[in-house]
Amino acid sequence: MDVKVLRLGHRRSRDARITTHVCLTARAFGASEVILSGEEDRNLMESVEDVVERWGGPFRVSYRRNWQGVIDEWKRSGGEVVHLTMYGLPARDVIPSMRETGRDKLVVVGGARVPGKVYRLADYNVGVTNQPHSEVSSLAVFLHMLFDGAEFDLKFSAAMVEVVPQAHGKRIRTGDGDEDAEID
Amino acid sequence: MDVKVLRLGHRRSRDARITTHVCLTARAFGASEVILSGEEDRNLMESVEDVVERWGGPFRVSYRRNWQGVIDEWKRSGGEVVHLTMYGLPARDVIPSMRETGRDKLVVVGGARVPGKVYRLADYNVGVTNQPHSEVSSLAVFLHMLFDGAEFDLKFSAAMVEVVPQAHGKRIRTGDGDEDAEID
Repeated sequence: MDVKVLRLGHRRSRDARITTHVCLTARAFGASEVILSGEEDRNLMESVEDVVERWGGPFRVSYRRNWQGVIDEWKRSGGEVVHLTMYGLPARDVIPSMRETGRDKLVVVGGARVPGKVYRLADYNVGVTNQPHSEVSSLAVFLHMLFDGAEFDLKFSAAMVEVVPQAHGKRIRTGDGDEDAEID
Repeated sequence: MDVKVLRLGHRRSRDARITTHVCLTARAFGASEVILSGEEDRNLMESVEDVVERWGGPFRVSYRRNWQGVIDEWKRSGGEVVHLTMYGLPARDVIPSMRETGRDKLVVVGGARVPGKVYRLADYNVGVTNQPHSEVSSLAVFLHMLFDGAEFDLKFSAAMVEVVPQAHGKRIRTGDGDEDAEID
């Protein structure tokens, strides 16, 4: 099951860090791509691509001004559209049937103001709780639940660096040697 | 088991939104308080308090310049300190034993630059995966796992407003009437 994330309404000035966290969360929790909409932001895309180059892929970040085109194409090709919103049905109740269909998912995460049309176009409007918190935490917990914790087993290919988990301290392994490096 | 969150190294100019998301995530996923360190930020604290007033509590946000004092006091009173870091041991492996102790948890989330001392003071250094993503997603997934999804059953008291979950559209219920209000 392929999962991509569509980030609506990005604003370069205000949203750079949150959208970066959305992208990195998508990658770390098993989505294959984030499609950005709203304002185009080359700096942000490059910084995400830098992470992919360093920590491995595959993962893509792309830009599409016309978000509705992205949703329409996704549905035409047989995929399902899941809009994460605090107004939606509880993720816990909806995910089991969503997983059963096995169909690819486009996970839509909103920005400042989500057009009402998104609620109508989505196959599922899903809340990770019905409380206000964050599109970053909603996306993370949704993907964690959808993939049943598989983020802990993900392998990224062509990584230049990887973490060697430690009880205390920081240790990384770089691709150009077998030695672990202790970092401060 | 009481859980509080200690947010290190907040910077007013750069971190306001991320730290706000950390606070709202802490609340929505069952922590009782966020203690902020780094730069003091009254605006941020007031905006979180506004959410608590509107969406219910109990939840507190406080400020302590001396983060090490917070950790020391927590440990002296018998609580455990869990530092979320991509360099730590996988949350999936560590959480079961952590849950068994039943001891209160102080969850430490870093800012730009976490002092090495934090890694040594923490009882557990825990990674929600060993990939770079976000303190917001780490906190959310960690609390989701620690509380075994209990965020979906949380009730907040004295809420002025609550969501009525919908398959499509937005609906809220306000405290001053029994009527649901459809919002656009």
